[in-house]
Amino acid sequence: MKVKVATKILEANDRIALENRRLFDKAGLFVINLMSAPGAGKTSILEKTLLHDSGLKIGVIEGDIAGSDDAERIEKLGAPVVQINTGGACHLDANMIYEALNDLPLADIDLLFIENVGNLVCPAEFKVGEDIKVMLLSITEGHDKPLKYPLMFQESSALLLNKMDLAPHLEVDIEKIRRDSLSLNPKLKIFEVSCKTGQGIPEWIEWIKTKVRRD
Amino acid sequence: MKVKVATKILEANDRIALENRRLFDKAGLFVINLMSAPGAGKTSILEKTLLHDSGLKIGVIEGDIAGSDDAERIEKLGAPVVQINTGGACHLDANMIYEALNDLPLADIDLLFIENVGNLVCPAEFKVGEDIKVMLLSITEGHDKPLKYPLMFQESSALLLNKMDLAPHLEVDIEKIRRDSLSLNPKLKIFEVSCKTGQGIPEWIEWIKTKVRRD
Repeated sequence: MKVKVATKILEANDRIALENRRLFDKAGLFVINLMSAPGAGKTSILEKTLLHDSGLKIGVIEGDIAGSDDAERIEKLGAPVVQINTGGACHLDANMIYEALNDLPLADIDLLFIENVGNLVCPAEFKVGEDIKVMLLSITEGHDKPLKYPLMFQESSALLLNKMDLAPHLEVDIEKIRRDSLSLNPKLKIFEVSCKTGQGIPEWIEWIKTKVRRD
Repeated sequence: MKVKVATKILEANDRIALENRRLFDKAGLFVINLMSAPGAGKTSILEKTLLHDSGLKIGVIEGDIAGSDDAERIEKLGAPVVQINTGGACHLDANMIYEALNDLPLADIDLLFIENVGNLVCPAEFKVGEDIKVMLLSITEGHDKPLKYPLMFQESSALLLNKMDLAPHLEVDIEKIRRDSLSLNPKLKIFEVSCKTGQGIPEWIEWIKTKVRRD
């Protein structure tokens, strides 16, 4: 019974995700669904990405249960941004994105980041019409995460290991994270980054640029 | 439509939670539903709690999407433990707990910890028959979490601010976490703890003992 219900919700979601996809294609927009556990640094990575001289025109959709802190941080950097409050829902769905698109200048941007609700589980289950999914893992969360939360690692094209500056203060096995992540998803591109020191940010930006492949 | 479905699922869950409650009462068992984002240190806190000379007989139910790492860590310390794999579900529900209870010696324990799936959203929505909810927040997750994920802070009786040993290396405003948490839930008991240094662990154990109130 529960499974039946979940399937219906997913079917409705996938239909709207396809409609979003058509709107993105029409606007020539590359879309990244950015996911992580709470506090892994999604907004900080977006700030670093916006501050970098990438030549990309970037827009952002911020998803949170409540509040508009993240959208305010992005707006300060001059990027077009819409805040979605899910009002309790633990992930963004395609319809929330569809309704937010009216408030973004789609024709004027090359790359849209959709920052999902902080949650290492549910966001990976819901397509929103994105080109690719990218996930962050703060290394403070520990090296057991890939095998305990496999779906997001399987669904993502890239994994950003964030807060690398804290590595000297942690007992975390980065090689185990790499090994287990790649066993789940051999094509996963892994970046070691720090929003504090800037480590790995140029490599991340270069990779995005190859993905957006503007002409 | 979606709301209607969710209500039915919650009603079914609450009925089974009441049944669990009856079983706990019959066994004279105090039950704590332990929740946090992934990697905040729930299992580490349980290890510290088990190693402390509390005089309490403690059992544990471990909830994870996949894997049995956490149950193995608990078993090494000699406590009765059952691992639940939710197979994708982002939280424990009352029925999962009901089915796990057969495999625990309820009459021989005073205190049962139910370690929920790492998720700062959904676990707070599902009763499992517990006496109280307790949450962990790793201070590495940042001081914006209470206002962005209010429900878990509202539902919990205690908040453990974990990884305090990392405070010198972070730009985190602990007073803001305290202030915002208490604005959501003025009765919330807050402990600053570190599983690395042992900070705050004795105070946490004393508080649990007053809650269990054995006779």
